[in-house]
Amino acid sequence: MQPNIENFIGCDSSYRAASIVLYGAPYDSTTSYRPGARFGPAAIRHESYGLETYSPYQNADLTDFDIFDSGDLELCFGSSESALADIEARAEEILQDGKFPLLLGGEHLVTLGAVRAAVKKYPDLHIVHFDAHADLRDDYLGAKLSHACVLRRCHELVGDGRIHQFCIRSGDRAEFEFAAQHTEMHKFDFTGLAELTEQLCESKVPVYLTIDLDCLDPSCFPGTGTPEAGGVSFLQLLDAIRTVTKANIVAADLNELAPTLDTTGVSTATACKVLRETLIALDKGWPGFQV
Amino acid sequence: MQPNIENFIGCDSSYRAASIVLYGAPYDSTTSYRPGARFGPAAIRHESYGLETYSPYQNADLTDFDIFDSGDLELCFGSSESALADIEARAEEILQDGKFPLLLGGEHLVTLGAVRAAVKKYPDLHIVHFDAHADLRDDYLGAKLSHACVLRRCHELVGDGRIHQFCIRSGDRAEFEFAAQHTEMHKFDFTGLAELTEQLCESKVPVYLTIDLDCLDPSCFPGTGTPEAGGVSFLQLLDAIRTVTKANIVAADLNELAPTLDTTGVSTATACKVLRETLIALDKGWPGFQV
Amino acid sequence: MQPNIENFIGCDSSYRAASIVLYGAPYDSTTSYRPGARFGPAAIRHESYGLETYSPYQNADLTDFDIFDSGDLELCFGSSESALADIEARAEEILQDGKFPLLLGGEHLVTLGAVRAAVKKYPDLHIVHFDAHADLRDDYLGAKLSHACVLRRCHELVGDGRIHQFCIRSGDRAEFEFAAQHTEMHKFDFTGLAELTEQLCESKVPVYLTIDLDCLDPSCFPGTGTPEAGGVSFLQLLDAIRTVTKANIVAADLNELAPTLDTTGVSTATACKVLRETLIALDKGWPGFQV
Amino acid sequence: MQPNIENFIGCDSSYRAASIVLYGAPYDSTTSYRPGARFGPAAIRHESYGLETYSPYQNADLTDFDIFDSGDLELCFGSSESALADIEARAEEILQDGKFPLLLGGEHLVTLGAVRAAVKKYPDLHIVHFDAHADLRDDYLGAKLSHACVLRRCHELVGDGRIHQFCIRSGDRAEFEFAAQHTEMHKFDFTGLAELTEQLCESKVPVYLTIDLDCLDPSCFPGTGTPEAGGVSFLQLLDAIRTVTKANIVAADLNELAPTLDTTGVSTATACKVLRETLIALDKGWPGFQV
Amino acid sequence: MQPNIENFIGCDSSYRAASIVLYGAPYDSTTSYRPGARFGPAAIRHESYGLETYSPYQNADLTDFDIFDSGDLELCFGSSESALADIEARAEEILQDGKFPLLLGGEHLVTLGAVRAAVKKYPDLHIVHFDAHADLRDDYLGAKLSHACVLRRCHELVGDGRIHQFCIRSGDRAEFEFAAQHTEMHKFDFTGLAELTEQLCESKVPVYLTIDLDCLDPSCFPGTGTPEAGGVSFLQLLDAIRTVTKANIVAADLNELAPTLDTTGVSTATACKVLRETLIALDKGWPGFQV
Amino acid sequence: MQPNIENFIGCDSSYRAASIVLYGAPYDSTTSYRPGARFGPAAIRHESYGLETYSPYQNADLTDFDIFDSGDLELCFGSSESALADIEARAEEILQDGKFPLLLGGEHLVTLGAVRAAVKKYPDLHIVHFDAHADLRDDYLGAKLSHACVLRRCHELVGDGRIHQFCIRSGDRAEFEFAAQHTEMHKFDFTGLAELTEQLCESKVPVYLTIDLDCLDPSCFPGTGTPEAGGVSFLQLLDAIRTVTKANIVAADLNELAPTLDTTGVSTATACKVLRETLIALDKGWPGFQV
Repeated sequence: MQPNIENFIGCDSSYRAASIVLYGAPYDSTTSYRPGARFGPAAIRHESYGLETYSPYQNADLTDFDIFDSGDLELCFGSSESALADIEARAEEILQDGKFPLLLGGEHLVTLGAVRAAVKKYPDLHIVHFDAHADLRDDYLGAKLSHACVLRRCHELVGDGRIHQFCIRSGDRAEFEFAAQHTEMHKFDFTGLAELTEQLCESKVPVYLTIDLDCLDPSCFPGTGTPEAGGVSFLQLLDAIRTVTKANIVAADLNELAPTLDTTGVSTATACKVLRETLIALDKGWPGFQV
Repeated sequence: MQPNIENFIGCDSSYRAASIVLYGAPYDSTTSYRPGARFGPAAIRHESYGLETYSPYQNADLTDFDIFDSGDLELCFGSSESALADIEARAEEILQDGKFPLLLGGEHLVTLGAVRAAVKKYPDLHIVHFDAHADLRDDYLGAKLSHACVLRRCHELVGDGRIHQFCIRSGDRAEFEFAAQHTEMHKFDFTGLAELTEQLCESKVPVYLTIDLDCLDPSCFPGTGTPEAGGVSFLQLLDAIRTVTKANIVAADLNELAPTLDTTGVSTATACKVLRETLIALDKGWPGFQV
Repeated sequence: MQPNIENFIGCDSSYRAASIVLYGAPYDSTTSYRPGARFGPAAIRHESYGLETYSPYQNADLTDFDIFDSGDLELCFGSSESALADIEARAEEILQDGKFPLLLGGEHLVTLGAVRAAVKKYPDLHIVHFDAHADLRDDYLGAKLSHACVLRRCHELVGDGRIHQFCIRSGDRAEFEFAAQHTEMHKFDFTGLAELTEQLCESKVPVYLTIDLDCLDPSCFPGTGTPEAGGVSFLQLLDAIRTVTKANIVAADLNELAPTLDTTGVSTATACKVLRETLIALDKGWPGFQV
Repeated sequence: MQPNIENFIGCDSSYRAASIVLYGAPYDSTTSYRPGARFGPAAIRHESYGLETYSPYQNADLTDFDIFDSGDLELCFGSSESALADIEARAEEILQDGKFPLLLGGEHLVTLGAVRAAVKKYPDLHIVHFDAHADLRDDYLGAKLSHACVLRRCHELVGDGRIHQFCIRSGDRAEFEFAAQHTEMHKFDFTGLAELTEQLCESKVPVYLTIDLDCLDPSCFPGTGTPEAGGVSFLQLLDAIRTVTKANIVAADLNELAPTLDTTGVSTATACKVLRETLIALDKGWPGFQV
Repeated sequence: MQPNIENFIGCDSSYRAASIVLYGAPYDSTTSYRPGARFGPAAIRHESYGLETYSPYQNADLTDFDIFDSGDLELCFGSSESALADIEARAEEILQDGKFPLLLGGEHLVTLGAVRAAVKKYPDLHIVHFDAHADLRDDYLGAKLSHACVLRRCHELVGDGRIHQFCIRSGDRAEFEFAAQHTEMHKFDFTGLAELTEQLCESKVPVYLTIDLDCLDPSCFPGTGTPEAGGVSFLQLLDAIRTVTKANIVAADLNELAPTLDTTGVSTATACKVLRETLIALDKGWPGFQV
Repeated sequence: MQPNIENFIGCDSSYRAASIVLYGAPYDSTTSYRPGARFGPAAIRHESYGLETYSPYQNADLTDFDIFDSGDLELCFGSSESALADIEARAEEILQDGKFPLLLGGEHLVTLGAVRAAVKKYPDLHIVHFDAHADLRDDYLGAKLSHACVLRRCHELVGDGRIHQFCIRSGDRAEFEFAAQHTEMHKFDFTGLAELTEQLCESKVPVYLTIDLDCLDPSCFPGTGTPEAGGVSFLQLLDAIRTVTKANIVAADLNELAPTLDTTGVSTATACKVLRETLIALDKGWPGFQV
């Protein structure tokens, strides 16, 4: 009789054999509006048994690949720096083992921990950012570590012209002004992604992909802290993921599912499907896997 | 003072006068993920008083036609074969009386009872199937009678080339392989439906129409057991219904509304509207009504 | 230490300085299906702190303008005539002070109070009406004052050809027949709005804009008394608002948010965003503000 | 094939044979805080199929008696006087036929219609009133017809000393002062009910019993417009019902279930059980039934 | 890096070392009213991290004992006999290894599988049954295997006078008549439990303890398929568990938590606490553990 | 026309005139299980309009007294020390003005800010603590500032024998051992409160009263982060408040309402009522008010 192992469906490889490693960061202490993203990774894992492992979109199956789910980190609520340190350590360990770290948030601040680890290994890191919100504030009510500032903190690590933002439709005026000077921002949708991907492919630069699921329209993804009308559809996001994963993605995250805010379960089911498609697209497209 | 009769709005013909007869099958015992489809037909009936009987899409009114609502069958939970027998008997009675049986599920398995009755009367029956899921498994954890296997069971009744599937975006690999050989499957949307309808019209074959409402995108229909992102819109479904009902439809069903999973009531309201439009389109298009 | 003032975000001008004045009418006593619109204006105000004041769509900020939020009227449930009188008095006061009254419902009946005031000041008033429902019944179960009759009552005030309806997809047959003779009705979407706006701009007639938020598709706006599948998207509504506000709008309302029907909060968040965009578009476009 | 009749479980007698007649008044237009009591009677009827007809408390079965359920009146929202007239007419018809009218609200205002009918037949009527709220306001924001004024209106019909109130734990100071002079008020619980019942039995006066279900503690009955902590338990209410029904009860009502406010369904299930026990207690205890 | 093990808090012994073994049976296909008990065991496990392992009631800690959580069986929905066979096999394996099987339902039918295994090992088995419902129907709509019949089926295994029922407050008349002749039934509460326990202790007979959590009052446990007003409090249940576990309990179950029916999470949290207290009481009281 | 002022019902005194000052601390960043207490104070204020200002329990009215509601502090999520500093500053200001500060949480950690201010003014401060949880951990996953450690931090300020705990029914073993040596802990209920109050009255020591609303049983107060079965009833809490307020209470708080966790609204309504009764009891009992 075995103990009860719970992983994302089809991700039951051993760590040793795995090319992609999932890890959850159930943290949401800086969420300014509606908390609950802490419950995201466990919900994705738990509800994934309602999902097929096979993708008719990509004609591939999660069980065709070697993916390991390491469960959730035990993070300390209310202590952002300590939580980020734990996330960074986990990402670093996975990267050092030559594997691909895929982080499940949590609020968007968790990205900072993973980017810190990635930029250490890949100093020329680019970041592709799908999100409804610019997340470029310098501080939020005095806090430098806030989900509303995470891309600004990342900018301090990678510098100008390395952050490529899509679907942005919310922020204060100063954030849009900052973006005009320091990042490549595409408002509202994925216009420009194909061109960017071509450039990223040519230059072969390492890319961190961060997907704030609230880039999706609230009609199909209401279960998030700060829903913003006017987003993209699931099929548009799927297309964008299949496009951008042709580049040299070296680490990634999905974040900001707050499952209890949507009692229909549709947001969680959609997040599961986005994760399945992302895993398959990464497995097919990431150079590291070709070996 | 009269007792309290509750029927779908505008469907208060007598059985004798009716051309279409509604009957509900509140069964969901084989639902593998989230139960609740048992509450579907009663919710459709109960919430229909929030709907107009007039359709501005088809410029017609439910009260222009003769439709009878016979309420729900009393089915035994946990006993699929017995439930299917009761459904089959009801469908058979309606068909023998020269009327059109319209079944309200319940989980998709209930379709099998109605198809058994229809294929007895119409041995050359075709099935048009709108659904997110292929439902072509041979068994589910050992059970041959499962909502995940219902089209496979139907295939055993009607044979190759007689099942026409649309909007399919979920299943295991084996189901898609089975479909490639035995059914006509259109993935993701209604592409191909106009051509099919033309053929069906020309050949005048009898057609059973089964609509799993989860073919709709979860954004407009979250209240279902296994929501699948990437579905069609209400207007696309409406268009498809108006197209396919030009063929010789002899029986039909709507299923998989699980109303309590969507506390906004939108899924139920949408199911009511799909039913109204289906009833009007059938009444206008079915040859049997021209007399 | 100050008392706790709660207004729609960014609308903290003084009454004296303000060009636009918000006022709420928390009334829903004639709602025939699902009540709850009474909670709409308070929810919009309360949840607006999750919204940015800056609009990337119009590159403008609520704080660029002078808007005053006067809170909710205290209306008597169950007494429609008395409630309408209170609404009319408030609208009249604002109009007399040369300001723009923007009413937050409440059920759609509240519009009648504001139109009564507007038509007194502007006898040649036109009404532009975005709604899923025709609202043209002569009475509802005997009541002349009902949310289902509100445009019919308005028609009695402004006469033939002055009411311009868009997105209408529900009503009984008689309402559509009435519209064919007495109003300009555009079914289903905003087709014709650009042309109408051109005419309104040329003639410079004063226009009342009434937005029943259920013109939106239930997928993005489930939190309303009578959701109707097949509506417009947020971006389509945003575009329509930016179009029509080029005309000489003299008063307006947003109504029929029933926030507790949508526990995800998305309907309220969307209503907040529609209000922000409407306020900015009005401030930019209304001739009265140019002085 | 029969149409779909829906009645409270076990209440399928014919009108002619019935001793008790149920009728629903789905009205809540004057509810001042949270509407939804309009959905009460239909929910009680619909969810009663989850209840047994047999009571182990009273060792009797609903099917032992002759009870008829006449369904819901179609009342006009927003028109209190018209709604009350319809309720009064129905109550009068039942009383004239020598039967016992049992009204299902709806907000508490509906009681006034039934009391008007009862006092016409029984000029010496007493009223026993179980409620969290005194309901003795003279007006509510100017309205004389409001659920907050219903016992005050009843007092105008029956006069001093004829209204006996129990469980009252909310009201403004003026209501408690009014009660001290004009009614017999027992605060908080059922203290005094046994003594009162003895007096009522001795004098054999006709009694109207009105049960506002919010007399129950919100822990067991949260689904009501204005929940008030500190109420009685189900077993205490059951005991009170069994006590008071020894008197000469000639008409009764249960009101203020707002089922959608309690998504667990417990409030509705409890209301069903209170109704079953009330019906059995009345059938056993009412002199009129002994013949 | 380890895979993600999820067990009930504090139950992370190895199987070999364990004295008590938890196993879940997520089955609810015969539930006649509201399904959802299938989600019970996973919810108990998942939400247990909100619970302390220490009990101030019994001054003991789950980590003082050796308990193993074997997770959920994978049962086939819609196939009761097959599900019961899987449950029986698991219970048998645990019993044969000299350990105590503690089953987490699922609907109450699952008890039958465990009782079949227990009665094989202990032919003189008694059953102590805490429940709101008698569960003594001979069949339910023709089905012999139904949650409404489970104690009747158990009676066929253990015979007259061996089933001791407490808290029963719902059933049809025939069930109460059956109980009068064949079981020892205590209606409404735990009256008689102390005396029974004394007898069981003296005779040292092996006892199966089955706790349908709906014995609790719906005020503290609304999340169950068929809530019945008038139940016992948590403290009364705790006291009863501490009493009865002085007897020679050889196997047990907790069932009928339907977590999604109670979105407050209180029902699940209470079930977790009942399980903790049951585990500690069993560990302290069961003779088998003294060795 | 006035701006929209929102305060707790009946608390519209000016600051200058007020004897009691309400202030909200919407903070919950260290909540370890389910966040949402941040929404507590706004919900209490907003929903208070469903409450009467008159208390039939104490025969007094909120409007008899002078109470000022200063609204919510704007606190920085994720920065506990900064939030506590803001709370302390506000409490200090109120105390220095000779008024009574009544803090509305927020999670229980907010108490620490207010106690810091109180102990500065009253070095011999005692704390009376009503709570389900001991809150005596030295740290929680490394954090010293956590809602689970708040009374431990308070103990560092006031020392042994000054903290009096009631209703405690959850904690780890070490917390109960700590309490045995350093605080006066009464488990489960209010046993001992009358005696303690007598002593406090005699010694006239200044007392801080902190009420974690989860001391209430989850049946009447499910809307809290960590509900614990087996709590006290509303009437028991009311009685305890009326008892303890005879002592020299100098500051107080109510905390841990998480309103969105209870969609019935009962938890918020109950919190409103507890606050009304607390305000009235304080106003009647506090020596400072007698002048």
